[in-house]
Amino acid sequence: MVKTPLTTMKLPKENMNTYLTPVTTPEMVDQAAHWAHEAHLISAQQTPEIRASWLVSVAQGLRDNSDELIALAMTDTNLSRKRLEGELTRSAFQLELLAEEIRSGVALDAVIDHADPHWGMGPRPDIRRVNVPLGVIGVFGASNFPFAFSVIGGDSASALAAGCAVLHKIHPGHLALARRTAEIVIDVLHGAGAPDGLFGVVEGREAAVALVQHPLVKAIGFTGSTAGGRALFDLACARPEPVPFFGELGSINPVFVLPGAWGRRQEEILAGYANSFTMGMGQFCTKPGLLFVPAGEKENGGYEKLVALLREVQLDKLLTPGLHESYLTTRDEVSKLAGIKVLVPGSDDEKPEPTVFTIDIHDVRYNPEVLHREMFGPATILVEYEDTAQLVELAGQLQGQLTVTLHADDDDDLTTLMEAITAKTGRVVFNEWPTGVTVSYAQHHGGPYPATTAPSATSVGTASIGRFMRPVAYQGLPDSALPPSIQESNPWGIARRVDGQFHPAAGDGATDEF
Amino acid sequence: MVKTPLTTMKLPKENMNTYLTPVTTPEMVDQAAHWAHEAHLISAQQTPEIRASWLVSVAQGLRDNSDELIALAMTDTNLSRKRLEGELTRSAFQLELLAEEIRSGVALDAVIDHADPHWGMGPRPDIRRVNVPLGVIGVFGASNFPFAFSVIGGDSASALAAGCAVLHKIHPGHLALARRTAEIVIDVLHGAGAPDGLFGVVEGREAAVALVQHPLVKAIGFTGSTAGGRALFDLACARPEPVPFFGELGSINPVFVLPGAWGRRQEEILAGYANSFTMGMGQFCTKPGLLFVPAGEKENGGYEKLVALLREVQLDKLLTPGLHESYLTTRDEVSKLAGIKVLVPGSDDEKPEPTVFTIDIHDVRYNPEVLHREMFGPATILVEYEDTAQLVELAGQLQGQLTVTLHADDDDDLTTLMEAITAKTGRVVFNEWPTGVTVSYAQHHGGPYPATTAPSATSVGTASIGRFMRPVAYQGLPDSALPPSIQESNPWGIARRVDGQFHPAAGDGATDEF
Repeated sequence: MVKTPLTTMKLPKENMNTYLTPVTTPEMVDQAAHWAHEAHLISAQQTPEIRASWLVSVAQGLRDNSDELIALAMTDTNLSRKRLEGELTRSAFQLELLAEEIRSGVALDAVIDHADPHWGMGPRPDIRRVNVPLGVIGVFGASNFPFAFSVIGGDSASALAAGCAVLHKIHPGHLALARRTAEIVIDVLHGAGAPDGLFGVVEGREAAVALVQHPLVKAIGFTGSTAGGRALFDLACARPEPVPFFGELGSINPVFVLPGAWGRRQEEILAGYANSFTMGMGQFCTKPGLLFVPAGEKENGGYEKLVALLREVQLDKLLTPGLHESYLTTRDEVSKLAGIKVLVPGSDDEKPEPTVFTIDIHDVRYNPEVLHREMFGPATILVEYEDTAQLVELAGQLQGQLTVTLHADDDDDLTTLMEAITAKTGRVVFNEWPTGVTVSYAQHHGGPYPATTAPSATSVGTASIGRFMRPVAYQGLPDSALPPSIQESNPWGIARRVDGQFHPAAGDGATDEF
Repeated sequence: MVKTPLTTMKLPKENMNTYLTPVTTPEMVDQAAHWAHEAHLISAQQTPEIRASWLVSVAQGLRDNSDELIALAMTDTNLSRKRLEGELTRSAFQLELLAEEIRSGVALDAVIDHADPHWGMGPRPDIRRVNVPLGVIGVFGASNFPFAFSVIGGDSASALAAGCAVLHKIHPGHLALARRTAEIVIDVLHGAGAPDGLFGVVEGREAAVALVQHPLVKAIGFTGSTAGGRALFDLACARPEPVPFFGELGSINPVFVLPGAWGRRQEEILAGYANSFTMGMGQFCTKPGLLFVPAGEKENGGYEKLVALLREVQLDKLLTPGLHESYLTTRDEVSKLAGIKVLVPGSDDEKPEPTVFTIDIHDVRYNPEVLHREMFGPATILVEYEDTAQLVELAGQLQGQLTVTLHADDDDDLTTLMEAITAKTGRVVFNEWPTGVTVSYAQHHGGPYPATTAPSATSVGTASIGRFMRPVAYQGLPDSALPPSIQESNPWGIARRVDGQFHPAAGDGATDEF
């Protein structure tokens, strides 16, 4: 019997095993925030080992219930079993990798400066710094990844890893799945000994606003549309105490194809492109919405292959009727932009056939907006350029992106282009495709606005934990009053920097000499 | 002859050695931002060694011109020679420490994940991440530290270390000093081979707004008042492309004195307090504005020592007439808050005598605002509590702080209080005083709002560099197309994390095994 409350309910504690309340009132958000705050204070005091064990238990809970969860996901969304199975695996792996990361202590960023009477600016006191959890984190799930960016996706996992509590705003696009996932997470956390209230969910638009504005909520993780994300970002900034808003909003993910690569590998590139922009019916945050290619192919019939490939694409319904509607609207608006020509018309069907537009660089110059319109669905634009110098110009007109992809061969010159691209994106992909975001140490899933509202932050990978922590320095404290992470004897055996030198975690196989 | 333009001027390039233009128009800010943007692109491409050499040259430039600069500072401000000499040393040291930090590569946070076909969520591509500079940084200097938090203070130094360009908004409180410092910085950077435009200054209120709103300005560093900082923060958030605003605003820096320490060391504590809150005439961001002490001393005559000590304080004029005026206004407002009693009245003189108020915890309960009012000058409040459980309650009513100080002996119980304090501050100081902020690896000069607008960021210490960088991940790139920092052979010999394991910099004396 689950004892922990799902925060969607206004029920006496005894009845907390009933979950179905469609709207959370601001009063319920307030109650939930207080529970969550208390729970985070307990979590913050735990050893990394214990917190890691909670994440591992949640991962196991997902795996143990995968049949039920995937069946619910298939009912709630139009996604395939294979895709959903991969996403569940990814989400469980993500929890386990973050568990390993907090065990190593890397996320704590522990730094010790011993007192130094000869320090260059005058005597230095003993000063030690370590990250502490921010508090309660509000997490907004995305519609397009019902596991990996939803209830217990990257934002929730990294916030829990940081020692924070999570209040997750359920996305109505997969309601039954989200509620059941939340039940399982709450159940497993309770069973693993985590404090009640550490994880909760809220529902409804009013609750979303109350969550962003609640004084005990200390940061927001968001994945969704630019319009929705910006509105919530503005609310977060306007609070009496503004809080960090880690929002992943919109990205077009342009692909630059250089002449050498185009000349030799045109067919392979078009096949990769067709696959990547239609993957998940074009509803990935990293979908390539622009392909820059040398001009002249249309006349040469080079695109016929693309047209043929797109006929083979496995069609599906879009995620929700609302998304279907807004996809068609945006696609049709783009079709009317000056200079846009239709290469593959696509369709308005329930399972829409893919659309490909073309435009040449001269028309882009008069209408750079064509580079800024995200079409969330299976549509994309081929932009034809005349010489490679124009690629730098095109890169300069882009807004911030999650990814920019290059297809180039040895004889293609990347020097200037590389710099222009780096300025606009959080990830540069080379001779591969941007869809598919691995969860690892080096991953950066972020980028300049509007890709995100916080260009230094990633929502994927081990570095995502740091978003939900802040450093505290301790000056002159007796060892016993310090957090264990920065006590002299390093009782947790974690990675630390001491007097400027790095010392890896005890189990890390490298130096461990202090 | 200096070639680099000071951006306060609208003069042909040939006349750039004339510096005195009191107001920078938005058009001039625009021109300066473009120059700065171009310069940062060049800086971003340099080796850490070269960028470090620029910072070291600027440090030397400060030392070489210290007589002239300190004379100007003494004319512009009311600060003593000794204090200014210390501050100049601190500023030069800061540049040198940040130079060392970028040489080690730590600020680049280079992470390499080799391709791994057996990665837990499915095959992992080769992915490598490194920090890149954000671009042009707008820096707002503070009035109270004309060297350390001004033209080439911590914000400018860390932004330059990051590979950014700096446009500094001159504080009118030390105009001649700021202009001359800027001349020297520009001169030295030019002589050291840095790109023209890497550092510039602007003046006037209109320029301040233009700077925060300029599309090429990618982050702001600010030290100043809560009102001024919040207004600029709001502008930064409201931009079409919002940018990070690293503002250090207001802090009261409460000091908790526990009964054991108070019983044994009352005299020493009051002496330290008198010294700390009057240091720099109470115009330090870390001035202790609240002292929580056990009740009963007033009746016992225990404060007579404090009164006597305050008679010995070396008085000075406040930094500017404007600050003098607003200090007196705030102090008089606080004197009228319910429950406030006057222990030491102080004076309204040009060199105001220190003021000490007292209040007891019962009155604070009805009027917690008394804990939130920063008096920027030599005034402070003694809060009398009755038992130590009340300290946790008082901590809970505090706003975010740069520092919270504890005075405690072995028999004082810190368990619950420590947690309550940590929740409210960026630095905990133990049996010392918060004034004096060492520049080191572990330092954190920051804290929850309103201490700062970015609770994870520090404006002092080596970690300050990271504020002005953002990560970029490179997936599948050939080694030659990668930035040197993440090329396989580690040509710069910097600290890196490879497949999850840390490898220190080549010269770091620890493991270096790949």
